[in-house]
Amino acid sequence: MGSAPEAFDAVEVIATKRDRRELSDAQIDWVIDAYTRGVVAEEQMAALAMAIYLNGMGAREIARWADAMIRSGERLDFSGLRRPTSDKHSTGGVGDKITLPLAPIVAACGVAVPQLSGRGLGHTGGTLDKLESIPGWRASLGTTEMMRQLEDVGAVICAAGAGLAPADRKLYALRDVTGTVSCIPLIATSIMSKKIAEGTGSLVLDVKVGSGAFLKELADARELAGTMVRLGTDAGVRTVALLTNMQTPLGLTAGNALEVREAVEVLAGGGPPDVVELTLTLAREMLEGAGRTGVDPADVLADGRAMDVWRRMIRAQGGDPDAPLPTAKETHTVLAPADGVLVELDALAVGLAAWRLGAGRARKEDPVQAAAGVELHYKPGATVRGGEPLLTLHTDTPERIPRALEALEGGVTIAPEGSRPALSPIVIERVA
Amino acid sequence: MGSAPEAFDAVEVIATKRDRRELSDAQIDWVIDAYTRGVVAEEQMAALAMAIYLNGMGAREIARWADAMIRSGERLDFSGLRRPTSDKHSTGGVGDKITLPLAPIVAACGVAVPQLSGRGLGHTGGTLDKLESIPGWRASLGTTEMMRQLEDVGAVICAAGAGLAPADRKLYALRDVTGTVSCIPLIATSIMSKKIAEGTGSLVLDVKVGSGAFLKELADARELAGTMVRLGTDAGVRTVALLTNMQTPLGLTAGNALEVREAVEVLAGGGPPDVVELTLTLAREMLEGAGRTGVDPADVLADGRAMDVWRRMIRAQGGDPDAPLPTAKETHTVLAPADGVLVELDALAVGLAAWRLGAGRARKEDPVQAAAGVELHYKPGATVRGGEPLLTLHTDTPERIPRALEALEGGVTIAPEGSRPALSPIVIERVA
Repeated sequence: MGSAPEAFDAVEVIATKRDRRELSDAQIDWVIDAYTRGVVAEEQMAALAMAIYLNGMGAREIARWADAMIRSGERLDFSGLRRPTSDKHSTGGVGDKITLPLAPIVAACGVAVPQLSGRGLGHTGGTLDKLESIPGWRASLGTTEMMRQLEDVGAVICAAGAGLAPADRKLYALRDVTGTVSCIPLIATSIMSKKIAEGTGSLVLDVKVGSGAFLKELADARELAGTMVRLGTDAGVRTVALLTNMQTPLGLTAGNALEVREAVEVLAGGGPPDVVELTLTLAREMLEGAGRTGVDPADVLADGRAMDVWRRMIRAQGGDPDAPLPTAKETHTVLAPADGVLVELDALAVGLAAWRLGAGRARKEDPVQAAAGVELHYKPGATVRGGEPLLTLHTDTPERIPRALEALEGGVTIAPEGSRPALSPIVIERVA
Repeated sequence: MGSAPEAFDAVEVIATKRDRRELSDAQIDWVIDAYTRGVVAEEQMAALAMAIYLNGMGAREIARWADAMIRSGERLDFSGLRRPTSDKHSTGGVGDKITLPLAPIVAACGVAVPQLSGRGLGHTGGTLDKLESIPGWRASLGTTEMMRQLEDVGAVICAAGAGLAPADRKLYALRDVTGTVSCIPLIATSIMSKKIAEGTGSLVLDVKVGSGAFLKELADARELAGTMVRLGTDAGVRTVALLTNMQTPLGLTAGNALEVREAVEVLAGGGPPDVVELTLTLAREMLEGAGRTGVDPADVLADGRAMDVWRRMIRAQGGDPDAPLPTAKETHTVLAPADGVLVELDALAVGLAAWRLGAGRARKEDPVQAAAGVELHYKPGATVRGGEPLLTLHTDTPERIPRALEALEGGVTIAPEGSRPALSPIVIERVA
């Protein structure tokens, strides 16, 4: 009706991938743009996503797909900052609060961290949900506000604006309801289009592997990591990926306020060793990617400079770093059934339990409970005594406790004393 | 919100087929019902349809899918009629006006024909579009009206009501825009759910094979025919299928009024031999399916009884069988370029040309031109002289002629005199 004719027909593009042929650059550019404009309908993109899921995409198609998604919106530019920039992305795990201490640590070392984060869906938590348990803290910042905070504080963790890769925003919501989430080309292009559009100079990817991760198999994680590193590198972003262990939760907490408390412990020089180790390893990668050598992130932890950045970062976004964090109305303690060695504490089981206690959401629009979650008293490898507390469940809605306990069934294994569990290292592999 | 919880989750059903597992009966029942109710969204059904397209369905799944679609709506019942019923369905071809003479012939032999038809989409015509070129004729009848006409006249050709297999109605429209049309399990269940719900006692399927057909390969047509015969038989409908040739148009016309004219010629005892042959072959199959033996359909053609039923059938639906049919504002004659033997007159080329002249529609809501189409002066095998008329194009919109001529390029082949083209028989195979 008076508008310009479309370059392609959606059915023709769908049929190309359905019939196992490669999508041309022009087809990809058109379909992403037309989908963003609403000319390609949701059901058409759903059919195409399923065809991609089942028939795959080659390296050229993946690169073009990511590029088209970046071009669907605005692109931030931090080249005016007086500092290099670096960002980290995690594919999501249970108890993964690493961003919270990491951003202030890296900023304290002189590298700006523009971290655009998301909310949690399913059994893995979201960084914004965690920070929102701090009284007053707000996730939404305008671009100018974000830039100013990066200049002044050096670190910002906020929600990605709607203008960044809007094609991905639509496609991500669509994939969620059409069974097309767990597809490496679509995951890689979704993550990388946002991170490249965000404008960071370097990027470290934390690709989780194991029961509590999105990808359970090392081979899949390796493929995803390789695909993302290539996309970043091709787009001029120095990118490395670490494959890290998500067989058991990170640290001793899973849940929003519980994890903030643990992050603050790390910033205060304490905290669980695995969280400290992974935070410092990722910090070193970020500093190296930003060309900032000769600085040891452990120093800024030890002398309180990281904590200082944290407090300024929280305050800059309206939060009170000294306010007490919310605590749950009810707790329920799970006792060790016998003496022995805790050989397994399954990440998925703990993640599901925390979710069911109210820490996570089933649908985008659901609220989360700030105080809900699971506290671990031991990590795998520990010797425990029968009757001692093993886990504490936190919730404002005690009627949820039975279903959380169900989720934990089979996820906790105690072996006879003297057993030695096969514990994996935190960092499994580096992909550059 | 107060409504009963759903038995399944759409993503779970999609993932089952995506991961090449079989859908359970309960999953199929639920997904068809929930889609009809709007609980399963269009984009979710699109993803499922693509997963079915690429991963297939087994015989049990196909049978259940068809059954669930039948149960999505009402089912007609002709058991009160004093005559047996039989119907014919064609998968669609170029110049396929067979239903028009066939229904009156079979009715004149004492078998009632309740033919619920569709409109054309793409290069194949629709029976209702053809009949609508008769002044006054209307396609929409209520169930009572239809029943009365079947009693009084013995034949009715009308539009399927919205209550019949509503799941198929939604799914058909969805498949059309999502590249999931050409999938044997989905085609078979779409056709058969409507035909079984329509309530016919026996059914003859005309499965077209060749360039102008939906299926180009004999193996695919055979698989579709076998699948449909099995679905019909399992549902208690005596069903046979004929695989018939659609390499060249049927008869000498493709276009709405042009085809009605040819159908009336057949009813008057004339008409092209291929149309007469296929009509009588299908009529014999329908009579056999309805248990009406010892009647020769050629007799009712020869003595005018079929023509009599035709005239009553048209009149019963408001049409005037004596009114002149619309003629096109413009015609354009394509001349034979040289002396020789016409060895090829491609069905798809002629179908596309007729479509572009205005006989067909690109979208459901587009109008069609009653008088547009292509008239053939020769059929493959004929000896032609250079400069003689080969084809006449008819249209009300002469600006469409150049694109119609483009469609014909490469579709007409004249070989040196004495050549003998390999002509296929009309009926290739019978599947019972």
